[in-house]
Amino acid sequence: MAARIIDGKTIAEQINAETRAESQRLKARGITPGLAVVLVGEDPASKVYVANKEKMAADLGFHSALKRLPADTGEGDLLALIDDLNFDRKIHGILVQSPLPKHLREDEIWDDIDPTKDVDGFHPLNLGRLAAGQRAPVACTPAGIIEMLVRSGAMPSGKHAVIVGRSIRVGRPLQLLLSQKGRAGDATVTVCHSRTPDIGAHTRQADILIAAIGQPRFIKADMVKPGAVVIDVGINAVPDATRKSGTRLVGDVDFDAVKEVASAISPVPGGVGPMTIAMLMHNTIAACRARESA
Amino acid sequence: MAARIIDGKTIAEQINAETRAESQRLKARGITPGLAVVLVGEDPASKVYVANKEKMAADLGFHSALKRLPADTGEGDLLALIDDLNFDRKIHGILVQSPLPKHLREDEIWDDIDPTKDVDGFHPLNLGRLAAGQRAPVACTPAGIIEMLVRSGAMPSGKHAVIVGRSIRVGRPLQLLLSQKGRAGDATVTVCHSRTPDIGAHTRQADILIAAIGQPRFIKADMVKPGAVVIDVGINAVPDATRKSGTRLVGDVDFDAVKEVASAISPVPGGVGPMTIAMLMHNTIAACRARESA
Repeated sequence: MAARIIDGKTIAEQINAETRAESQRLKARGITPGLAVVLVGEDPASKVYVANKEKMAADLGFHSALKRLPADTGEGDLLALIDDLNFDRKIHGILVQSPLPKHLREDEIWDDIDPTKDVDGFHPLNLGRLAAGQRAPVACTPAGIIEMLVRSGAMPSGKHAVIVGRSIRVGRPLQLLLSQKGRAGDATVTVCHSRTPDIGAHTRQADILIAAIGQPRFIKADMVKPGAVVIDVGINAVPDATRKSGTRLVGDVDFDAVKEVASAISPVPGGVGPMTIAMLMHNTIAACRARESA
Repeated sequence: MAARIIDGKTIAEQINAETRAESQRLKARGITPGLAVVLVGEDPASKVYVANKEKMAADLGFHSALKRLPADTGEGDLLALIDDLNFDRKIHGILVQSPLPKHLREDEIWDDIDPTKDVDGFHPLNLGRLAAGQRAPVACTPAGIIEMLVRSGAMPSGKHAVIVGRSIRVGRPLQLLLSQKGRAGDATVTVCHSRTPDIGAHTRQADILIAAIGQPRFIKADMVKPGAVVIDVGINAVPDATRKSGTRLVGDVDFDAVKEVASAISPVPGGVGPMTIAMLMHNTIAACRARESA
């Protein structure tokens, strides 16, 4: 029996509807949530992501400001722009699109963003508040994964969650979220990574399996426990001669085979991707509410 | 065959000897590492801990300042003292002894300590830097556990480490440390806790088992894989009629039985306890070096 599909697009639409209602409520009080997106350089994928974020922000009634900088922008100039945005009262959330050109140090940039405007949740103060179980903006992809689990009825509490991947953007915040106290946490959490000798020995024990290792179709059917819930965070371009672009996107999970073993699975595309943007907007409106005491 | 004992006292003495040599090197340059210890109230155990820290600081050639405040000190007065210490150029490390009287919010206090003087590693910015893989003071008990493993030849890299307990002081920083990239990390890490349905099912898989759950002799021999390395973080007082005090200290591990199964085990007392103070002094001298660019 094939797995139930955890439809990230539909869940993201639910969250966006909540954000839109909240945005309208704030508008009625004269408050407009403001999101600034900073794009450095001309990376084609980044341009698409930024355009999607702009469109979504407009759709939700946000004020949005796109700041484009040339690829050779110096760190000082980028930090000066961030400082301006930190003090800009119309801006409640600041997102600096990754990846940045190599000469810019992402750690330095993130450190400079006002933590209360850090809607990406990458500022170390916010990561630390998460580790300490305090309220703070949470990185959008891990926050989106928790929403997917909770809203699709796969509550983490009491489950064994196995995360494959230990990135700062996904694996590490997610391990903190899933193991924290409370309704949407309380899972026993295992983190595997490139230095784990036998990843399958761990993934086969997972009630909830999260693949965030960045390798196309890495998780095979024999690495999944029958009945597991599988969330696929990967977005990998693989060759596909039948497409005009010559490539198509696949996840870190061998979807067609794993869906015959799992009880529920998120697809790529249409899984975690739309959730990430929805959580960015959710974080922006939360930052706006906190700033305006509304 | 009984397990090898991981002697925290001996390893702590090695670290203290390194710190003492470093302290002398700084002294020769006219720099004296300074540690301030803040004690609020009259908790008898806290008084003992604070006295031990004072003694060790003096022994290592540090300037040490003990600040005693009455149990009914208001939060404003405590924060004012911390602000003074933040600006005191003779002080490189600030430690506020836990537990604080109930009317004082520990989160607020920790937030107020200058992160560069946070030798306890509890400031959220430092927890976040740890999560992000950046250099920062690391909480003393988890840092001490890593040193015990590395210096006793039980390198975490490639091992499956199972942590029982998810406290902010031990379990959470330790899960980040053990799974981070590098020589002393690179473990596959599982965190179990009070909401884990069958803790034994996880602990039996551990190459490295860390017990930090705060329940006397919780880890029994049948919960340990033969040959595992076991680190016992617990310090629990249990009744003992043969002692004048009427109690004695035991760990979270059933030591006598588990030592017949494990390949190496840390005792209580004489295991993690001495390491925690050694790492506090290590963090203080590191903070001094950073501040004085020495």
